Amino acid sequence: MKFTVLGSGAVGGVPLYGCDCPACQRSRAVSSYIRRPASALIEHGNTRIALDAGLADFGTRFPSGSLDAVLLTHYHMDHVAGLFEIRWGKGASLAIHGPVDEHGCDDLHTHPGILDFSATLEAFQCFEISDIRITPLPLIHSRPTLGYFIEVDGARIAYLTDTVDLPAATLAFLQTHRPDLMLLDCSHPPSDTPRRNHNDLNLALSLHQKIAPLETWLTHISHDLDAWLMAHPEPLSRGVSIAQDGQVWRGLV
Amino acid sequence: MKFTVLGSGAVGGVPLYGCDCPACQRSRAVSSYIRRPASALIEHGNTRIALDAGLADFGTRFPSGSLDAVLLTHYHMDHVAGLFEIRWGKGASLAIHGPVDEHGCDDLHTHPGILDFSATLEAFQCFEISDIRITPLPLIHSRPTLGYFIEVDGARIAYLTDTVDLPAATLAFLQTHRPDLMLLDCSHPPSDTPRRNHNDLNLALSLHQKIAPLETWLTHISHDLDAWLMAHPEPLSRGVSIAQDGQVWRGLV
Repeated sequence: MKFTVLGSGAVGGVPLYGCDCPACQRSRAVSSYIRRPASALIEHGNTRIALDAGLADFGTRFPSGSLDAVLLTHYHMDHVAGLFEIRWGKGASLAIHGPVDEHGCDDLHTHPGILDFSATLEAFQCFEISDIRITPLPLIHSRPTLGYFIEVDGARIAYLTDTVDLPAATLAFLQTHRPDLMLLDCSHPPSDTPRRNHNDLNLALSLHQKIAPLETWLTHISHDLDAWLMAHPEPLSRGVSIAQDGQVWRGLV
Repeated sequence: MKFTVLGSGAVGGVPLYGCDCPACQRSRAVSSYIRRPASALIEHGNTRIALDAGLADFGTRFPSGSLDAVLLTHYHMDHVAGLFEIRWGKGASLAIHGPVDEHGCDDLHTHPGILDFSATLEAFQCFEISDIRITPLPLIHSRPTLGYFIEVDGARIAYLTDTVDLPAATLAFLQTHRPDLMLLDCSHPPSDTPRRNHNDLNLALSLHQKIAPLETWLTHISHDLDAWLMAHPEPLSRGVSIAQDGQVWRGLV
């Protein structure tokens, strides 16, 4: 089993267009600090599943037939942009699983092309793709959004973005089915005022403490959080790290 | 003055996702045959204006402050996709001129960020950006669409995509103000049945004959037209050629 962070960035990414903050400058100088649209890939045997599809080069990275499905968290552009070009393609259809959202994104649902949006997900109702077991988990965001709890090859991964805090039922599920690896939205530096739509670092660390996964990787990182982390280099809580594009997790050793 | 074709492709581009036709195979083998989303750049002195913004790497190609404006033909995704990421940027706003279209594309108009959509264009009412004079010309497409007649440094360029045929008033304007260079939608190979939304080669050649520009470059080319051209290598009409990504025109010699 191989889990790869394809992108760890908040909307706009890092570097942010036109921004010269220390984090954006650093990412222009050293490409490993670039943060692309938040997304990931799970591979096990011959099965490959993408989590979100916001990468601009999604179709180039994943040629026709190379993916078994895409799990969409929600229909904001930074999570679906890569689907717009490939939908006009030829060959096998690509199954897109995601939340019920009547508006979708622009005309994706009215002109799906080779994309197959017919699957209907229900919260907490697990389904399988080959031998990967997936449970959709409701999140709290500005439009219908699902996280995913993924059981594969004896490992448990929770992918939880975009969200601010977690619904009580999702928190309870995660406390019961404690993940080995948890990817968690943390777009913002610590803040005294409540955030909308995305976690700040305080809220993310508090969720890590409540759920107690073996490892938490914070993702959907903004340039503001990167700049804050540059100014506050002390370690985060034990078991918590900041995801990087390209980072790989290979399951329990 | 320098006019550059940034992209010459129909929606889906060449190669088309999952397609193994001769044209798609050729473009995978030789990168000069790749066709990106139809778009162009006009440069004169210190002024730079983009025509459409569908390139996935639009923000990387055009860092903050490097463009004076974008002229949008219409709000289909392959013409605006590059705006979604840069809108969240910092710094100077970027003027986006385009047709009145209450829906725009997804949430671009409700969350414009640094994009300035306030300019209101009227058909045949010319305006100036520095010393570049621009006249919007109505086209015929599945949503409100404008072509542009551009006068710069003694040269006249008409940019006419996406369109099937031309409205009578636009045709009359172009016959009166004969362009030196005309970029014209030609998505499809010759067809006996009428096309919707885009010209086929027969219609494009007939428009070239009626308008009689010095040069016509066909653009918004589909893989189907490329494959047809590979099977029919005889020259097109005098003065007509097929645009390529990166192709440059430097005005009248």
